[in-house]
Amino acid sequence: MVLWAEKEEILGLFKETPLFSGLTIETQKIFANTAVTCSIPKGQVIYMEENHADFFYIIKKGWVKLFRETFDGTEAVIDILSSSHIFGEFSIFDNGIYSSSAQAVEDSILISLPTSILKEQIEKDPKLAFNMFAVMSRYQRQQDKKIEHLTLQTTSQRIGCFLLRLCPQNQKTDIVIQLPYDKILLASRLGMKPESFSRSLNILRDKTGIRISGARVEIDSISQLTDFSCKGCSSSYPCEDI
Amino acid sequence: MVLWAEKEEILGLFKETPLFSGLTIETQKIFANTAVTCSIPKGQVIYMEENHADFFYIIKKGWVKLFRETFDGTEAVIDILSSSHIFGEFSIFDNGIYSSSAQAVEDSILISLPTSILKEQIEKDPKLAFNMFAVMSRYQRQQDKKIEHLTLQTTSQRIGCFLLRLCPQNQKTDIVIQLPYDKILLASRLGMKPESFSRSLNILRDKTGIRISGARVEIDSISQLTDFSCKGCSSSYPCEDI
Repeated sequence: MVLWAEKEEILGLFKETPLFSGLTIETQKIFANTAVTCSIPKGQVIYMEENHADFFYIIKKGWVKLFRETFDGTEAVIDILSSSHIFGEFSIFDNGIYSSSAQAVEDSILISLPTSILKEQIEKDPKLAFNMFAVMSRYQRQQDKKIEHLTLQTTSQRIGCFLLRLCPQNQKTDIVIQLPYDKILLASRLGMKPESFSRSLNILRDKTGIRISGARVEIDSISQLTDFSCKGCSSSYPCEDI
Repeated sequence: MVLWAEKEEILGLFKETPLFSGLTIETQKIFANTAVTCSIPKGQVIYMEENHADFFYIIKKGWVKLFRETFDGTEAVIDILSSSHIFGEFSIFDNGIYSSSAQAVEDSILISLPTSILKEQIEKDPKLAFNMFAVMSRYQRQQDKKIEHLTLQTTSQRIGCFLLRLCPQNQKTDIVIQLPYDKILLASRLGMKPESFSRSLNILRDKTGIRISGARVEIDSISQLTDFSCKGCSSSYPCEDI
């Protein structure tokens, strides 16, 4: 049973989630009535690749890593997601199985929703279908951009690009940001080994004058960072591609 | 005006194209009536990134490269497509602009179709919408896999993986295949510089015993190649992911 207050909170969360944006209140309630809030401790696996996909999830709080494992046991990090992101929803087009594994990398609160309802409603509600197209299209652009970066950017430029995306877009000087998760995870997210990440971070520091202490990053001028990082990319800052 | 014989041929091509598979003959005819066949010589640009997307295309014959250019003038190859592949169709979810450029890399014959008809019919025909979801979902899996490969496979393993995808899946020994396009293009397609490609090809040759002469590749045993290439991947051969 979903409590009234909890349901209101879930409906509030739907507003920030592109998949649910602009749906009628009736359709939103169909989803909210089947939603379950779950607390997932840091490190817990939410589902494994190839598992039967009964649920998809909205992140209310925390960080979730999507990954795959190779035959020689190495982990490929597909994505690291935060609040109001959805995951597991594409399984409805993948024969009902998850195409990657999911794990909480910080203590997280998730809203689970049945994939069966999503599949059913997408066939009934053209607005939901259109939202799904928009979500998939955005994801595609992000993946295309990641491939471009992995192919053409140096590892230092990739770190610079990641930092730029954390910067407030209306501020050009004296910026202080916090790295959202630890450096080992950040290295995997950017497709680097930890030792290569450290080397590349040092190069970035030398070339752009940014200062990093623990998770705190100080950037005197955004143009120092864009001049170095964005020349190996087909988009210009501020970019919406990734 | 589309001639009767040409229309029949286009309807035949639709059967091999997942986006059009299983549509009613009425819907297929709506597309076929607006189709135009065009011959594109090798090297010709079909459209540029950020152009307004009036048409999407089916490749009847030839090879088409999708790419982007970075600010320092380097080219990022997104994909190289062959017969019965579609491109430009995702523009209908990207505010009607192309997200990459397209160029014929061999003399090619294309069928152009208006994006306006696609957009209109997707809203009317749930089967077409479902096909589009399937096409996008397949593309997503391919892009996820490319990211995994770029992150975790060695350059030699990536070339091995590419060759495996050209092998007939029912043949395990004494395989002869042809590289579908030149090695410089192949290097870009796999995200490598030509000199890195040559070095990696030599390593692959040494490790797996394959023989390469011009575009001809001889593989004595498929397991030589899978043992080397697939251990850095989360899928096993034969895989459908890419």
